[in-house]
Amino acid sequence: MKNDKKEIEKKLEDMGKKIIEDAKKKKVPYLKIPARSTNNIVFDPKHLCYVLGDKEITRSAGNIRHVKPLAQMLKVASFCKELLKEGTKHETKRGLYYISESWGEKLKFDEQPESDNLIEDIEAIIGKPREDIHIIPNPGGSVYGDLTLKFKNPSGRMMQINCLQTADGQSIGPRMCEAEIVKCNADKVIAIETAGMYNRLMEEGAHKKFNAILINLGGQATRATRRIIKRLNEIKKLPVYIFTDGDPWGLHIAMVIMAGSAKSAHINKMLATPSAQWIGVTASDIKKYKLRSDKLRDVDFTRIKELKRDPRYKKDKRLQEELKTWEERKKKAEQQALLKYGLRYVVDEYLPAKFKELEKK
Amino acid sequence: MKNDKKEIEKKLEDMGKKIIEDAKKKKVPYLKIPARSTNNIVFDPKHLCYVLGDKEITRSAGNIRHVKPLAQMLKVASFCKELLKEGTKHETKRGLYYISESWGEKLKFDEQPESDNLIEDIEAIIGKPREDIHIIPNPGGSVYGDLTLKFKNPSGRMMQINCLQTADGQSIGPRMCEAEIVKCNADKVIAIETAGMYNRLMEEGAHKKFNAILINLGGQATRATRRIIKRLNEIKKLPVYIFTDGDPWGLHIAMVIMAGSAKSAHINKMLATPSAQWIGVTASDIKKYKLRSDKLRDVDFTRIKELKRDPRYKKDKRLQEELKTWEERKKKAEQQALLKYGLRYVVDEYLPAKFKELEKK
Repeated sequence: MKNDKKEIEKKLEDMGKKIIEDAKKKKVPYLKIPARSTNNIVFDPKHLCYVLGDKEITRSAGNIRHVKPLAQMLKVASFCKELLKEGTKHETKRGLYYISESWGEKLKFDEQPESDNLIEDIEAIIGKPREDIHIIPNPGGSVYGDLTLKFKNPSGRMMQINCLQTADGQSIGPRMCEAEIVKCNADKVIAIETAGMYNRLMEEGAHKKFNAILINLGGQATRATRRIIKRLNEIKKLPVYIFTDGDPWGLHIAMVIMAGSAKSAHINKMLATPSAQWIGVTASDIKKYKLRSDKLRDVDFTRIKELKRDPRYKKDKRLQEELKTWEERKKKAEQQALLKYGLRYVVDEYLPAKFKELEKK
Repeated sequence: MKNDKKEIEKKLEDMGKKIIEDAKKKKVPYLKIPARSTNNIVFDPKHLCYVLGDKEITRSAGNIRHVKPLAQMLKVASFCKELLKEGTKHETKRGLYYISESWGEKLKFDEQPESDNLIEDIEAIIGKPREDIHIIPNPGGSVYGDLTLKFKNPSGRMMQINCLQTADGQSIGPRMCEAEIVKCNADKVIAIETAGMYNRLMEEGAHKKFNAILINLGGQATRATRRIIKRLNEIKKLPVYIFTDGDPWGLHIAMVIMAGSAKSAHINKMLATPSAQWIGVTASDIKKYKLRSDKLRDVDFTRIKELKRDPRYKKDKRLQEELKTWEERKKKAEQQALLKYGLRYVVDEYLPAKFKELEKK
């Protein structure tokens, strides 16, 4: 992490240096920025996620319409470099927008989308998500299991915690994102869509039985949570399993963890966990486990059609099959539907069976 | 807490005993339930919150339409008594609905609103929120500060934590709700609407400077969070301050913490913290601190009109004034707008000034 930080500081600095050198050479200063427009978002079949193509845009001091955003981008980069140097402070995109008011009439942002856009440009330039320059996403989700983390606490003091030392899980915010993994005795990650099922798994001792880190997604995973999942997978080589409701929306929660989104094509490689696997509840589980189900509605069918065309789903026969099964059987089920067999069933029967099934694939 | 538990167990048991005794006496078995219909919701000017009036409904085995819900209610009460006895297990309302499938065709619920409704009936009968019978609300929010809590962890082992021993705050779930307050060195609670401002306060050491417990509401406070706030106020006598965005929605976030909602009239007294105070951002702050603001939209004006008529606001001159000021100046501001004066301003200037202002009231 420390080397990362130096590398990022250097990249931010280089943006400014480039401008100064241009000026010294009496050249019109400019910066090249990876284009994030839809015509430069391509699907990378190797990494199974959307990435940016080779197109770049040029923001040049020679273009009157570029002068302000170019200067603003440098100011933002400089602000982030200071945040990074300071070490313990983080701000949100919204915070950054308001902070710009103190930069004077010429530099301040008129609307938040302007500063949001520049932050994403900087992400694309440095090739790192904004968390790494301390512009933090919304917190969300929580983590429970035998995982020891080291971090600077909000007051800047080094601290170590074990994620079992908590009542309801450690909430995932900026410091959890950055924390150093000191020790991890688990051998897998189970990420769970609903807080209710997460609680069920905690109380039934799923973390012990499966030797797992449990992560509560609380719906669509926040970036902060996707980051933790990716780091556990990458650094600790833990396989990741995602347990969602049995509908196309649940499946897509898993897909965003596996493959990222088109909108974040410029940083998907840093956020996505391509080897993660979707446990279910699958469309076939609904019949197999005789789960109480609801009829799919028009909006669900539309979503299924979209997913069938989505390149992220194209190569995965199992997921294509499941999408078809939903269309045919016209039923969806929530993960808590498994409770009809008792509080322990999900831990004693369902998950062991699913892990075996996924191993065979 | 332990006495509470015994008392609740007894109340649940009494529901069943009453039915058995009726039957023994050859009377038609029935139960009386406080009516939760709108015509029985009244505003209690002393406690400044909505409460239930004296009306009751009778659910009787003599009425064919009542037989099933009466039996179901007893089954739910019995299930909750088991949960409570077991001690470490909790379920959600949704979980309960699915669990009912194992109760057989005659007792299972056809739709979730049916079981939700019975849970609320039981809350009204026992006079305690459903958390106390281990039917838990959504988790949400987190807490940071010098607060030591004792609780049974998800595996049932007694454990103690200090809420400073965490990276981003302790998330508030079922065990935090129930936890025993072992030690609290803080002398106030500051509850904050947005995660961004909560992080700002943590990083600027607001918990030390103001000797405060910081609570991240993450928008509208969940019941779990309102419960923690109430307990810190009631047991530890800590004054509670609520810091929100400067719009009618932010003010109403504060109001729900202070006075509860009409929907939860049957348990408001257990959830509301009437002595809590709204810090702001007030309508007057926007001008006083020259905050960047947005125009109020039609939906905001409609909301202001509703709040002006709401009995919870009627007796509070300050809040009435602020509602008027919004209407006149037609502007709203986010709490992060204070960042224009630098990262530390909110801790060094704004909050101290506001605490002084509130003291004078």
